[in-house]
Amino acid sequence: MTVGTVDRQLRDRAARVLPGGMYGHQNAKLLSPDHPQFFARGSGARVWDADGTEYVDLMCSWGPIVLGHQHEGVQRAVRAQMEKAECLNGPTDVLVELSELLVDTVAHARWALFAKNGTDATTTAVTIARAATGRDKILVAKGAYHGSAPWCTPGPAGVTAEDRVNVVKFEYNDLDSVRAAVAEAGAGNVAAIVVCPLRHDTFRDQELVEPAFAIGLRAICDTIGAALVLDEVRAGLRLDLAGSWESHGVRPDLSAWSKAIANGHALACVLGTDALREAASSIYVTGSFWMAATSMAAAVATISAIRDDDGIASMHRAGSRLRDGLEAQAKSHGFDVRCSGPAQLPFLTFAGDTDFALAREWAAGCARNGVYLHPTHNWFIGAAHTDADIDRALDGTDAAFAALAGADRAA
Amino acid sequence: MTVGTVDRQLRDRAARVLPGGMYGHQNAKLLSPDHPQFFARGSGARVWDADGTEYVDLMCSWGPIVLGHQHEGVQRAVRAQMEKAECLNGPTDVLVELSELLVDTVAHARWALFAKNGTDATTTAVTIARAATGRDKILVAKGAYHGSAPWCTPGPAGVTAEDRVNVVKFEYNDLDSVRAAVAEAGAGNVAAIVVCPLRHDTFRDQELVEPAFAIGLRAICDTIGAALVLDEVRAGLRLDLAGSWESHGVRPDLSAWSKAIANGHALACVLGTDALREAASSIYVTGSFWMAATSMAAAVATISAIRDDDGIASMHRAGSRLRDGLEAQAKSHGFDVRCSGPAQLPFLTFAGDTDFALAREWAAGCARNGVYLHPTHNWFIGAAHTDADIDRALDGTDAAFAALAGADRAA
Repeated sequence: MTVGTVDRQLRDRAARVLPGGMYGHQNAKLLSPDHPQFFARGSGARVWDADGTEYVDLMCSWGPIVLGHQHEGVQRAVRAQMEKAECLNGPTDVLVELSELLVDTVAHARWALFAKNGTDATTTAVTIARAATGRDKILVAKGAYHGSAPWCTPGPAGVTAEDRVNVVKFEYNDLDSVRAAVAEAGAGNVAAIVVCPLRHDTFRDQELVEPAFAIGLRAICDTIGAALVLDEVRAGLRLDLAGSWESHGVRPDLSAWSKAIANGHALACVLGTDALREAASSIYVTGSFWMAATSMAAAVATISAIRDDDGIASMHRAGSRLRDGLEAQAKSHGFDVRCSGPAQLPFLTFAGDTDFALAREWAAGCARNGVYLHPTHNWFIGAAHTDADIDRALDGTDAAFAALAGADRAA
Repeated sequence: MTVGTVDRQLRDRAARVLPGGMYGHQNAKLLSPDHPQFFARGSGARVWDADGTEYVDLMCSWGPIVLGHQHEGVQRAVRAQMEKAECLNGPTDVLVELSELLVDTVAHARWALFAKNGTDATTTAVTIARAATGRDKILVAKGAYHGSAPWCTPGPAGVTAEDRVNVVKFEYNDLDSVRAAVAEAGAGNVAAIVVCPLRHDTFRDQELVEPAFAIGLRAICDTIGAALVLDEVRAGLRLDLAGSWESHGVRPDLSAWSKAIANGHALACVLGTDALREAASSIYVTGSFWMAATSMAAAVATISAIRDDDGIASMHRAGSRLRDGLEAQAKSHGFDVRCSGPAQLPFLTFAGDTDFALAREWAAGCARNGVYLHPTHNWFIGAAHTDADIDRALDGTDAAFAALAGADRAA
């Protein structure tokens, strides 16, 4: 099986009117020929591609869908706001309501500033830190993804040396490397350390933060007078509504949010402490749609639903069920796999599969068996994933393991 | 009169949870106390603030509303798409449909790449030009607004010297200054010249492009092997659907679009020629919501409606009626004013009003009399502005001129 007729026709048309036929992280050329490029709709934990094939969705639109597709509470809020307005000459009251909700929900937050992309949020946080400190240097972990602006995109084409000259790298979970990076930059030149709540780089196992690392970063920032920026874009709202490092007792000065914040509606956010409030008001950042109301109404509904329905526990339970199932299946089929990351952000690699060839073939088998997941990027669980959804997914992953084992035996 | 109770209460709440109480271009602190900060809804060419006061809308949400608020065709398309999906694991067929529509509509375009902010579009265009040429330098006009990323924001706080080191300035409508900027940068170092279709800088009269300037920019880019990037974010879709310089016979290599493209729904776009296609596919830019479907469905409906209903002629007629009325009113009240820019993007200044004090007082009078416009930034007309809307606006502007004349006499 390869993708269906509609998908192939759309790819042919796209090849004429899109650069390279597609762009960005949703480019299916990075996946197997069994993965569809085009999708049509979603409902709960299921999605349908352009040819009508159904999948259990383990990518959740690469993170944004945290409550399931077409979540009724969110959709109702969006429809109600859309009847009034989306984009006006100024914000609506929903801006204030959402800001208050975030300040009440996220432990370190005293104010909120909204944008559209995760990249907007990380870049704005960096700009605020620079304005607050009068310093230029930014420390980030090697391999970490903080967006696709010139200062942080993983693709170097079109990026100038000057775009990166103020970025200094350290190793995640290695405080000595952070100290070395501080020394390299000069302690008095460091505006911020930008870090994700866990190491979720593509092309490698995920790695939870070591509590001592999180605590140590906080101490280093305090010592050198730099801002600690927590990039919650990918993991935010799935681990702890109060902030992903709250259980470690570590609160950032600034945090960047997007993806899950409005269950698939375009929104991003920077949250900050009182100490950074003046700097945040001194910078000039804006966008034509940064005050648009429907995604803010969606965010109020999304965050409230996660909180009121204990969505994080639901995601943890579903993700744990998936991981337990995958580990048992792999063992029964004779594969040595590693499931890494929090249950809510699952990922699976095969031991010794350095070029991800096994992972790609297995992911292709999953797609053929109605499970949409990714071979080289972490997956996402949503609160809509029921036990039945996970069991259906496990049927597909088991068939994919079996096919992979059969191919192995045939080879 | 000042703003109403609801607006004041919302401002008080916002002061606690937003940096500086508000941020960005919609910050009402830049306006008079008679201008509301918060809005509730819009319909056609009218908007209502949070206290229920109605205004004829001459700002169109700072550009995005090109067909009028709650345009039925656009809203229908949005609702229909929203029932299927907004954000999935890949794009929907609407991505292809919209790309084809833009390639068919905009003369220079052979491909499209979508994003969320005008700043995304200008920054991506610059990145593509750099990837294509292997060069770093970008030429922009002094005072031009190309977005709020570090390389282009008008606010310097938090921006590093390196963010701007590759940007060289010229004077709009002055080819000699462009040649001097090329010499300063070094002809072999210039990746792109980025320019707006007209000079619509804030705090000054607008200035139409001189055809010889547009033609000369094209020739200079061809001579030095740089890309001509037309920043259509503000003026696009209001002057000429084929491209704002099409009547001058000048086609850019890349163009950046946002604002009006989806009648208020969050979308931005880079369009390019075949020669830039490979470079566009070589860069890595993306965003969690760049493939989201509803704003693309809105864009298809918006562009189709402007085309099929001759929306540009409607805007031109309404803007001309407004300008004729304003000029007659100013004369009758004894004011020396200048109406500048195309009819579809009106703006009015008072002669000798270098600190914009008269403009601010007049704009405040307009707000008190049910007309929402801006004292220091160009306004926007939409296709929904009927003769009756313009006449109602002129009633308000006339009362504002009268009040200003009375204040002058009293002073």
